[in-house]
Amino acid sequence: MKELKLALLGFGNAGQAFGRMLLDHEEEIIKTYDTKVLVTAIATGSRGNLVCADGIDLQRALADLDVKQGGSGRFTDTGALSSLTTMEIAEQADYDVLVEMTPLNIATGQPAISHIEGAFKRGKHAITANKGPIAWAYSRLRDMAKEKGVQFYYETTVMDGTPVFNLTEHTLKMAKVTEVSGILNSTTNFILEELEAGADYEDIMERGRAMGFIEADPAMDIEGYDAAAKITALLNVLMDAGITPDQVKRKGIEDITVEDIRRAADRGKVIKLLCRGVRREDGSVEASVQPTEIDRSDMLASVNSTTSVVSITTNLMKKVSVVEHEPEIEQTAYGVFGDVLRVLEGR
Amino acid sequence: MKELKLALLGFGNAGQAFGRMLLDHEEEIIKTYDTKVLVTAIATGSRGNLVCADGIDLQRALADLDVKQGGSGRFTDTGALSSLTTMEIAEQADYDVLVEMTPLNIATGQPAISHIEGAFKRGKHAITANKGPIAWAYSRLRDMAKEKGVQFYYETTVMDGTPVFNLTEHTLKMAKVTEVSGILNSTTNFILEELEAGADYEDIMERGRAMGFIEADPAMDIEGYDAAAKITALLNVLMDAGITPDQVKRKGIEDITVEDIRRAADRGKVIKLLCRGVRREDGSVEASVQPTEIDRSDMLASVNSTTSVVSITTNLMKKVSVVEHEPEIEQTAYGVFGDVLRVLEGR
Repeated sequence: MKELKLALLGFGNAGQAFGRMLLDHEEEIIKTYDTKVLVTAIATGSRGNLVCADGIDLQRALADLDVKQGGSGRFTDTGALSSLTTMEIAEQADYDVLVEMTPLNIATGQPAISHIEGAFKRGKHAITANKGPIAWAYSRLRDMAKEKGVQFYYETTVMDGTPVFNLTEHTLKMAKVTEVSGILNSTTNFILEELEAGADYEDIMERGRAMGFIEADPAMDIEGYDAAAKITALLNVLMDAGITPDQVKRKGIEDITVEDIRRAADRGKVIKLLCRGVRREDGSVEASVQPTEIDRSDMLASVNSTTSVVSITTNLMKKVSVVEHEPEIEQTAYGVFGDVLRVLEGR
Repeated sequence: MKELKLALLGFGNAGQAFGRMLLDHEEEIIKTYDTKVLVTAIATGSRGNLVCADGIDLQRALADLDVKQGGSGRFTDTGALSSLTTMEIAEQADYDVLVEMTPLNIATGQPAISHIEGAFKRGKHAITANKGPIAWAYSRLRDMAKEKGVQFYYETTVMDGTPVFNLTEHTLKMAKVTEVSGILNSTTNFILEELEAGADYEDIMERGRAMGFIEADPAMDIEGYDAAAKITALLNVLMDAGITPDQVKRKGIEDITVEDIRRAADRGKVIKLLCRGVRREDGSVEASVQPTEIDRSDMLASVNSTTSVVSITTNLMKKVSVVEHEPEIEQTAYGVFGDVLRVLEGR
């Protein structure tokens, strides 16, 4: 039986859900790929780092961090505890696949980009759940992976495990993408809906925070930075746009008033924060994120709450849309899990 | 350079669009797969049959049938004209891939099933755009293909080239499908919409026929037989249901009155012909096609005219929906074209 060793950089909610998914599918993976998947490193921000070339006790690591079930919130496996930093793990630990799940730095994509480069330099595969590298350095990383003959996957970076990148690569062969659009930010979607329903802005923010999908500082969402990073990632991969998020024509929902929403409603329309990219005549790609009035009978108008949609227009299949309905953390984990299965198939 | 020989059984609008797509991508296919795709047989109902092991002149065959551009409506390449029947072509002609595009017999799936069996018996790959074989004999054909070590693809049979089967196989790996639902019949969708908009039934039928998507005898659509065949195909492939269309709990829209539609509208709902399959506790799959009231805010309510949707629920990714927006004949052709590319990759 073969082995596939994973180094997990970042082990928050999604990372832990991914760890549970790995454990749940251990036998099925062995049966399907004749390969045992081992986690040989886990780097966290504040809970300690684990490194063990023979495989970390993943069950124990998960139990340690499960405070609700009596875990201490820190790793306790003293045999595996390591003083290596996250970057040192990328550069020195024994693994086959780097799984980048560290927190997003939306302004630079770092240090995630360096982590992935660290893996590629050593001829290791990489999977990223962090959209920073795809938004800020996709073409460089793609070329580096190709040159080194390693695999590079990133399905989770937009709409969790919902197939968007894989859809285009594996199911729309030879079709050329001419346009991409979508509703990709739940926070703004929720706020716009609630404003329309008559809720007060401060109440909305408070409720959204309590439900866990409005951040303590929601500016990144409200001003469209998160949506800009997502459409950039989509356009870099699907249309080889070669752009960075700062090149997106970006307008958030910060200036949208209840009156704007009501006036739109009177005309049978709803306001959504729409992401869009189209190819210009000169071959470059124009990307935008902006509040857009959408006809109430349009499918996009029904994309509510945490539901998201991406529409991909190609020369051969016209417009195909993919909708993710109210995902939870397991759907983020599945994107990474599916990418690991792809690495297993590609070896 | 390698060769891949196709036998096209059926050469109507979709078959001809597929032929044009092949010609348009001849160079790209050679560049990508180092393979020249040849059409070595074309069987039609009434325009003659062509067979030529060195490759038919596809351009000429298309021109012959293009009556608007001066074609005679019958094949003229006397060197290739053949007296073999369609079944004899399947059983005797020189080809690598059988492409089944003959007219659907919704009550039995024949003779398309026999054509495909004819190919498999000879160790040839098969692609079907005809949903009959998938609705009536999927598991038998799948097992036969496996046993013979040949490829068997059928993406076009539901929602044209929109990835549904490939989506699940290639992008939702290890996820178990627990439910499938969708709006899959354009004719009934159009009729229900127009009735709601206040149009008269006879007018609707006349207009639909003029627009080409209501058949001379619309009973197969209106009574839900077409939708039943489609949901059967989906469930056989995605959930290994092992059912036939006559096992679908089927109710068409023939009894829906304008009053039903208005009453639903008063409650904020629209009526759609919804297809659905769920796994029962005993492991079997329950399939239904029936007019269903859908909340106007639901995404399904916005699926209008010739737009279709399939929602696939899995244990790992919850519900993912795929929408095909107002397809034309090229989108049907693309499904077959994509399947040919898959055969090229799998060789």
